[in-house]
Amino acid sequence: MTNAAWDRHHIVSLADFRPVEYETILETALSFREVLSRRTKKVPALQGQVVTNLFFEPSTRTRSSFELAAKRLSADILNFSPGSSSLSKGETILDTAKTYLAMGTNLMVIRHAQAGVPSTIAREMDRLGVGVGVLNAGDGQHEHPSQALLDLFTLCTALNQQTPTIYDLQGKKIAIVGDILHSRVARSNLWSLTACGAEVHLAAPPTLLPKAFLAAFQTPLEMPQGFLKRQIYLHWQLAPALQDADFVMALRLQRERMSEHLLPSLREYQRSFGLTRDRISRCRPTVKILHPGPTNRGVELSSDLMDDPELSLVSRQVTNGVAVRMALLYLMGGVESNGVRE
Amino acid sequence: MTNAAWDRHHIVSLADFRPVEYETILETALSFREVLSRRTKKVPALQGQVVTNLFFEPSTRTRSSFELAAKRLSADILNFSPGSSSLSKGETILDTAKTYLAMGTNLMVIRHAQAGVPSTIAREMDRLGVGVGVLNAGDGQHEHPSQALLDLFTLCTALNQQTPTIYDLQGKKIAIVGDILHSRVARSNLWSLTACGAEVHLAAPPTLLPKAFLAAFQTPLEMPQGFLKRQIYLHWQLAPALQDADFVMALRLQRERMSEHLLPSLREYQRSFGLTRDRISRCRPTVKILHPGPTNRGVELSSDLMDDPELSLVSRQVTNGVAVRMALLYLMGGVESNGVRE
Amino acid sequence: MTNAAWDRHHIVSLADFRPVEYETILETALSFREVLSRRTKKVPALQGQVVTNLFFEPSTRTRSSFELAAKRLSADILNFSPGSSSLSKGETILDTAKTYLAMGTNLMVIRHAQAGVPSTIAREMDRLGVGVGVLNAGDGQHEHPSQALLDLFTLCTALNQQTPTIYDLQGKKIAIVGDILHSRVARSNLWSLTACGAEVHLAAPPTLLPKAFLAAFQTPLEMPQGFLKRQIYLHWQLAPALQDADFVMALRLQRERMSEHLLPSLREYQRSFGLTRDRISRCRPTVKILHPGPTNRGVELSSDLMDDPELSLVSRQVTNGVAVRMALLYLMGGVESNGVRE
Repeated sequence: MTNAAWDRHHIVSLADFRPVEYETILETALSFREVLSRRTKKVPALQGQVVTNLFFEPSTRTRSSFELAAKRLSADILNFSPGSSSLSKGETILDTAKTYLAMGTNLMVIRHAQAGVPSTIAREMDRLGVGVGVLNAGDGQHEHPSQALLDLFTLCTALNQQTPTIYDLQGKKIAIVGDILHSRVARSNLWSLTACGAEVHLAAPPTLLPKAFLAAFQTPLEMPQGFLKRQIYLHWQLAPALQDADFVMALRLQRERMSEHLLPSLREYQRSFGLTRDRISRCRPTVKILHPGPTNRGVELSSDLMDDPELSLVSRQVTNGVAVRMALLYLMGGVESNGVRE
Repeated sequence: MTNAAWDRHHIVSLADFRPVEYETILETALSFREVLSRRTKKVPALQGQVVTNLFFEPSTRTRSSFELAAKRLSADILNFSPGSSSLSKGETILDTAKTYLAMGTNLMVIRHAQAGVPSTIAREMDRLGVGVGVLNAGDGQHEHPSQALLDLFTLCTALNQQTPTIYDLQGKKIAIVGDILHSRVARSNLWSLTACGAEVHLAAPPTLLPKAFLAAFQTPLEMPQGFLKRQIYLHWQLAPALQDADFVMALRLQRERMSEHLLPSLREYQRSFGLTRDRISRCRPTVKILHPGPTNRGVELSSDLMDDPELSLVSRQVTNGVAVRMALLYLMGGVESNGVRE
Repeated sequence: MTNAAWDRHHIVSLADFRPVEYETILETALSFREVLSRRTKKVPALQGQVVTNLFFEPSTRTRSSFELAAKRLSADILNFSPGSSSLSKGETILDTAKTYLAMGTNLMVIRHAQAGVPSTIAREMDRLGVGVGVLNAGDGQHEHPSQALLDLFTLCTALNQQTPTIYDLQGKKIAIVGDILHSRVARSNLWSLTACGAEVHLAAPPTLLPKAFLAAFQTPLEMPQGFLKRQIYLHWQLAPALQDADFVMALRLQRERMSEHLLPSLREYQRSFGLTRDRISRCRPTVKILHPGPTNRGVELSSDLMDDPELSLVSRQVTNGVAVRMALLYLMGGVESNGVRE
């Protein structure tokens, strides 16, 4: 259950992921997608292991996806829900994590409204030397790696159904449209897509895409495959981002943005940045549309686009999410550690 | 895993159920009741399949019953709870259902406070051609088929312990007492009991049983077994309904009815329609009492009636609920579809 | 699956537990701790059995521990949560328990904010003759037996790693510090520790440790092993309790106590009764510290004590909790009953 190309205990951020790691995830997820097409959809890979979902910020959709992935790897699952928890009794987040560690947790899937919590817990697990892996399932406006990785899987398999690789993405133009500033999904995608050689075009109103945004992504990337430096472009209008795009990713628009005066109204946003059939005619004829969900129909994209099986990859993203999360839990579960786990 | 007498993908309403279908459910549930009496109570019938409980209206009791039924068929279970969900984020109900479909759901058990939601989702599943079955676990004041089917099972096995059939119900007098107007349980029971040839007597205060209520049940029923037309009688007093009854079903009285001025008080209701040992002396000596639960003791029926094992079938209804729900999931799971499922 | 030294259906209180029973639990938990160290951590002991968690008072930590214990015994688990339940619909607690009984529950794990609820349900199960075991997971300020039993296991294995027995506790001095008056953990521990021959020293401010407290523990105990009568000492200061102590158990301090004017402030409490490195220097050099969790760091004990692996047994308590709860469910599940279960 070990993989030569994989030596990560934790998946907290994609900032330092190397192309070989994306490729390993892609291959592993492909084999699990094959498992999911069989009549018996289970493998015993994590039998006897405990996967704990520590969702400090509630989420039904992402938690269900991780839960199903863990079940199909034959793991036992514990769900921590903050509502009825020790947190309201004054326990620190680290102590909560350590309690689940002491119960026998092998892998922790962590969501928290504050950026940095999964990373803090991961560091503590390393300090304790317990060999427990931490998977960031969304932390504040920081990152949401498993979403970006299922997006990557969806893009590559859309481009090449037989033998998809991350190299299929090289030189492809991908537009990401919406509330970039507050999106952990966009941040994780920026790391993965540019590392695989895609050209990323961000489109949003200036309030949701300040110039300073790019600074964080200037970190030099080791490019053993001869890739160019990260190619990211900013647009304050939709048209140039969509022009000849191979893929368009719409981001979810949070209604709170209006009370924060970052947006005049949903209708105003829709008029300038909502995706419609007419507008995507600027894209390449083979264009496909992605959305991490849940969608506000008629705001981020029109209902007819979302429901068009020729155009929309939204359902496929959800389906791929289970296979990709199986791959992540499987890979993390196979890392040898200092004796506590095997 | 297919059954010649069963070709339904969905169980949303009992309005068009044929006697042969009730008979198939009865027989299948009998065999599962036998399984449940064994030391090892599991069968691998739904191994690798995903049963998703979409309970938009919360319920612990019915959800637990479906959960246990699915576990004993070896299915994997996902629970959707609306509290911490995407619904509050603006997602439509259909999109929520489609998300769980895309994750790999094979059977959906749906409860919603609004009538028609399970039916809408079932139609969408058919439109998509995905072969996913929808089971209505209670929608508004419309129907609650699995409750009526476990009631049917409980009645038939009470009449004939060795070889129960639905024909045992022919000509039997069954009183349903309580808040008929708002009861999805009563509606589903009206379809099933009359289709099996029982005579149903409804008893309630006029505010909870308007004359117009009956109109919906005049639909002609194909009666291959020579059954008469549906026999339903209305009473605004308790006595004539109980007179010589073989069974009495008490319905749950919702306290909200008083704030809606449909009832003066619980005490007032109890005085006219509450079941007591004295009152049921009008029934046949072999009479048995049913209640779908949860009960307001001393309101719908007196505590001593509820706890008398000679009279009350309330516990047996709950026990039979697991076997009947296993039968429903099993039968739905075995319907051949257009290639997506087997 | 039966054990000669075990004939209890229910574990509601430790008041009448005999030393041989503690010894049986210790031995059984030791063998499960060995199971948990294997790669495959499951045993089929409760296959096909249903363990229902009836947590009327919410708790994530204790419920997770019981859930994992039940899963590792291969039981099926139902979780009852009061939020979305029939209770708000007027159902009595006994009727809720009987509903889960009728569904097929074999063992019930019950937590309730009111003392006596588990005992009431246990008596009802006995009256019905259904052979269903009840385990008290904390009832009001009464008892929390599984916590005291995991504490016992932790103490004995700390004293004797190779062949721990309850006799290792004889003559040991154990200080329990904190809100004794309101603590169900302290009450259960008082029964178990004194029955095993330990000397228990209670330390708390007078408002949280009235003299009358001891009255309940004067019940004579049958002492076949030549043990002395229960040895319990009260202190209104910390120092005499800690003097030469072998173990110190800190109890959780509930913030509500201040609004009840039982405590001036957390800081005031900490200044007089908070455990610090300096204060525990009065204890024996081999002293170890326990806390049932969740902890208020810096109130009941200082952060450096809690995190010192040489001193703190807090994590080990959590780990042992799973093995001890497996032992309890296993032992209860093996009691022969009057034919309903095997």
